[in-house]
Amino acid sequence: MRLLIKNIQTLAGIVPADKLRLCGAEMGAAATIDGAYLVAEDGVIADFGPMAQLPAELVADTEIDAQGRVVYPAFCDSHSHIVYAGSREGEFRDKIAGMTYEEVAARGGGILNSADRLAEATEQELYEAASRRAWRMVRSGAATIEIKSGYGLTTESELKMLRVIKRLAQELPITVKATFLGAHAVGRAFKGRQEEYVDHVCGEMIPAVAAEGLAEFVDVFCDRGFFTPEQTAKILECGKRYGLRPKIHANELASSGGVQVGIAYGALSVDHLEEATEQDVADLAASDTIPTVLPGASFFSNLPFAPARMMIDKGLSVAIASDCNPGSSPSGNMQLLWSLGCIKMRLTPEEALSALTINGAAALGLSADRGAISCGRRADLVISKPVPSLAYIPYSFGEDLVERVIVKGKTIYYNE
Amino acid sequence: MRLLIKNIQTLAGIVPADKLRLCGAEMGAAATIDGAYLVAEDGVIADFGPMAQLPAELVADTEIDAQGRVVYPAFCDSHSHIVYAGSREGEFRDKIAGMTYEEVAARGGGILNSADRLAEATEQELYEAASRRAWRMVRSGAATIEIKSGYGLTTESELKMLRVIKRLAQELPITVKATFLGAHAVGRAFKGRQEEYVDHVCGEMIPAVAAEGLAEFVDVFCDRGFFTPEQTAKILECGKRYGLRPKIHANELASSGGVQVGIAYGALSVDHLEEATEQDVADLAASDTIPTVLPGASFFSNLPFAPARMMIDKGLSVAIASDCNPGSSPSGNMQLLWSLGCIKMRLTPEEALSALTINGAAALGLSADRGAISCGRRADLVISKPVPSLAYIPYSFGEDLVERVIVKGKTIYYNE
Repeated sequence: MRLLIKNIQTLAGIVPADKLRLCGAEMGAAATIDGAYLVAEDGVIADFGPMAQLPAELVADTEIDAQGRVVYPAFCDSHSHIVYAGSREGEFRDKIAGMTYEEVAARGGGILNSADRLAEATEQELYEAASRRAWRMVRSGAATIEIKSGYGLTTESELKMLRVIKRLAQELPITVKATFLGAHAVGRAFKGRQEEYVDHVCGEMIPAVAAEGLAEFVDVFCDRGFFTPEQTAKILECGKRYGLRPKIHANELASSGGVQVGIAYGALSVDHLEEATEQDVADLAASDTIPTVLPGASFFSNLPFAPARMMIDKGLSVAIASDCNPGSSPSGNMQLLWSLGCIKMRLTPEEALSALTINGAAALGLSADRGAISCGRRADLVISKPVPSLAYIPYSFGEDLVERVIVKGKTIYYNE
Repeated sequence: MRLLIKNIQTLAGIVPADKLRLCGAEMGAAATIDGAYLVAEDGVIADFGPMAQLPAELVADTEIDAQGRVVYPAFCDSHSHIVYAGSREGEFRDKIAGMTYEEVAARGGGILNSADRLAEATEQELYEAASRRAWRMVRSGAATIEIKSGYGLTTESELKMLRVIKRLAQELPITVKATFLGAHAVGRAFKGRQEEYVDHVCGEMIPAVAAEGLAEFVDVFCDRGFFTPEQTAKILECGKRYGLRPKIHANELASSGGVQVGIAYGALSVDHLEEATEQDVADLAASDTIPTVLPGASFFSNLPFAPARMMIDKGLSVAIASDCNPGSSPSGNMQLLWSLGCIKMRLTPEEALSALTINGAAALGLSADRGAISCGRRADLVISKPVPSLAYIPYSFGEDLVERVIVKGKTIYYNE
């Protein structure tokens, strides 16, 4: 099966095949070709270049004319929580009335609110709702989505969530990756006994998750009021023993040692970082851990935006992810994240694109085979609607400029 | 022609027929009915109430089942600039690189950039581009749109813009209102001769606009670095002589007397107000002028958000409008404004809805016949997609939750 996309106005996100992440200034300097073609063979990018070099004899099974359109690698969302029951617009009202994240959590809202609702939902209900949310993300350009557990907080409910994620991975035409986040909050049964809950996560949940092969990553909400660096270390250590790679939540509410414990345990990424300090950034610069920033959460929850500009200026490989969840970031609009990265974090359109594609893939350990335009990588692509330029896409905030999403060379979404 | 909408989960924005605006606490207290029906006769709301009261014998030409959906008055966007040529994402890059609005303007960007491009565009080109933008706004829930001139800055180009607006008003299925904004910036031919430009606006442009009957309102960009209150007064005075009602831009960049000159000349609205002071708010409270806030511009241009919360707390009738324009707010997503009003201005979902509907209509002098649910008002309505509640709509920022837009009882947009 050969796909040819021709007359591409701008082909963006071109990166050498052996490059697994873009660091610092490289993020804004991925190559582009104006007036390009791209060929995919059996779902893999086989060739691309300026139209003048399109082989005259080339015959394709499918041919797409991308005149006036930008083609870029599909987004890799490395941090989401889209398996949940019910929405939390009641808490949205509380926040408008002036309550903080911690106050909402303290009165039984927040993660425990979602856990209560999830416990009552069936796998089928959870699957259907999450599938709709995943498709929403696809329509805005995503072809790879990581999904976390963490609204279960009991072994049974955590496994239920992870089975739903597994079914999404099997049934959706995109890649879905599962992360075990039992330590998202302390389950109600363990109220006031946080250490015991940590032991429960390590002693019962992680072995059960591993026994069913339901997750690839282990995550902990390491922050003020949630889990301490010591507790986080214990859980990551245990997860690693069971073959789960660490990816953690850190520094959303305070710089509380999460970055350092993540680095110490070889976390693939540390995520949030709204409160990251210069020291945190320096420590990340000396590590292989990818800082993942979540501008949707900052926007919706009125938190500071993570210092992504400073991180890039210091040479880091920044990823942007959705954090799509019912409490702090109830949106699956990936294209809006591109706008937020530019408008609120002062990333250039190209830097934000790199953060949403190759570096997002790197934060999932997938960048060898996707997240950029290079021969040998998967043909997971977005074709925009007609636009004057690449920068027009994030500039037009809140507009839907995705015309087509292609996964492994096949169109899975088309918006006429 | 009779339209029946039945099984409405929540019918929102119910206001007494003789109420022409909602002030202060009233903005959050418009009535709603859960489980409602609504009847429109010949494009006008004729009846509504709880389903139990739906007359059994009622026969309708068209019947819509709104099970699980919210119905609310269509948005009235009282401030836009959607007739323009070209986009300005190049300046977006400049702003990301750290330049201010005024620096961009000083080096030939900004409004003069748009004026240069507009001078070269044909009416047909302008019409087609603006029509697309208007439809974008319709798809997000608008049924009334005000459009300003102001990228002409010569008599010829201002008239060209206003003729395009007139054609939009004639050809689109929504209401379009025209505002003459010759004093948006000083035209290039008058560089360094601002007073002469003001005389030109008064002496040549306004009479020409009035002679062709091309505008209903007169507007001035009264702000630091643009037009002074004295110049504004001169233009408003002249506009009023020619039958144009004042509506002005004020206090975007500084509290520089715009509010007071607007009030003094009986402006229907003063718009922007990012830098409004407590004194400005007190002066507005003592007037009939509607403060119109533009959260899209604050969001995109990283300006402070206008103090809409304080204005409502002080009893004012606040309107929200899009300011859709290529420089400071390149988005026509009205539903996202609802989210911005809640998330960034701390308005409740109901307050922000009132600001986008009845108070937006009031800012155009149209609230006697639209902008709210009451018998005798136009059946300009939005039917949402299935949602759990009204608040879910602004909560789900960046999501498209408009299923149907109805103008005068007829569906003009349907998104399956």
